Amino acid sequence: MPSGKFITFEGGDGAGKSTQIKRLAAAIEKTGLTVTVTREPGGSRGAETIRAMLLDPDAEWDPPTEALLHFAARADHYTTKIAPALKEGAWVLCDRFADSTRAYQGYGLGLDMGAIETLYEIALDDFVPDLTIILDIPVETGVERMIERGADPDRYEKMDTAFHERLRQGFLEIAKQDPDRCAVIDADNDIDTVTARIFDCVETRMGVTLER
Amino acid sequence: MPSGKFITFEGGDGAGKSTQIKRLAAAIEKTGLTVTVTREPGGSRGAETIRAMLLDPDAEWDPPTEALLHFAARADHYTTKIAPALKEGAWVLCDRFADSTRAYQGYGLGLDMGAIETLYEIALDDFVPDLTIILDIPVETGVERMIERGADPDRYEKMDTAFHERLRQGFLEIAKQDPDRCAVIDADNDIDTVTARIFDCVETRMGVTLER
Repeated sequence: MPSGKFITFEGGDGAGKSTQIKRLAAAIEKTGLTVTVTREPGGSRGAETIRAMLLDPDAEWDPPTEALLHFAARADHYTTKIAPALKEGAWVLCDRFADSTRAYQGYGLGLDMGAIETLYEIALDDFVPDLTIILDIPVETGVERMIERGADPDRYEKMDTAFHERLRQGFLEIAKQDPDRCAVIDADNDIDTVTARIFDCVETRMGVTLER
Repeated sequence: MPSGKFITFEGGDGAGKSTQIKRLAAAIEKTGLTVTVTREPGGSRGAETIRAMLLDPDAEWDPPTEALLHFAARADHYTTKIAPALKEGAWVLCDRFADSTRAYQGYGLGLDMGAIETLYEIALDDFVPDLTIILDIPVETGVERMIERGADPDRYEKMDTAFHERLRQGFLEIAKQDPDRCAVIDADNDIDTVTARIFDCVETRMGVTLER
């Protein structure tokens, strides 16, 4: 039985997930808890190999193939890294998890949502995050931040505005359907304000007190 | 609508699949038909990348992860190679297909068969082979042939005799459950005898006449 906690961060590119995860990890560690920070796709040896295949700009995967690969990576990540860390009592913070597959392959690319839920069950059984923080920003803000960052666009980031709008609405819909697990945080603000909102949320939902 | 035919070859290692596929391909080509020979896992650019991950002797994949990877590879193989070839009227001969996942991950490693059928549907919808030839040999014969061949044991071939026995019985059970699609050929004989049995089977089942 896992004794740690599993918190996932979701949202479009440029929403500030990695910055905010670092800050939350540091604050949780200060309370004396052990924190493991990880990410998807990837996070474990096998899953990182699959990640490289998925993000290859020259690869052309059909949405069902892509979803199968994401859940293969996720199953490996869960079995070899997340579950062992939780068992030892760690708080695991994960940059993207299954909601990203729901948003990208489901809402974004039109893959049947029932198929995605079936894959979830095969890969993860009934395991679910204790808390999912969805960082919400307007599509244009996300794109601007990505351009500023100057990163090479990978195969997801190259997709068009309509796709990113479906993604954003997809994440909001996921949160609406599962409000006990999900919290939508308005991330269209300066970094410190967003951090404060996340800390408030984690304190309320997870019953911890974080140092500000 | 595919106008070609899809024939799969199944069976344990050392059953003689590749030799027999070459002979059948040559005989079908002599009738004036186009033949595409392919194999799994792999067969297409993306799927061959996944194959390398699956057959890596150092990799440790859980059965569900493994099945997800096999069906991801299969979906890519089907979409980018098998379906286009069938559409152009080719007869596609495939060394291993979904029955190998049923036999290895299902009967061999105990993965839930319902999960495998669900993955099949997500990856391939209702596509099924026109004919599946199962080459059946006693486990000891297969092992002897593999040793003679001197090939490096990959991660499947390294598994023990009890596993290979479950595999063999699995293939026989699959054939029993789907007799219209599957034909079990006794492959514990010299190459020419087995070829003659396969040619008889293909002539009867597929309504072609092959040159002997």
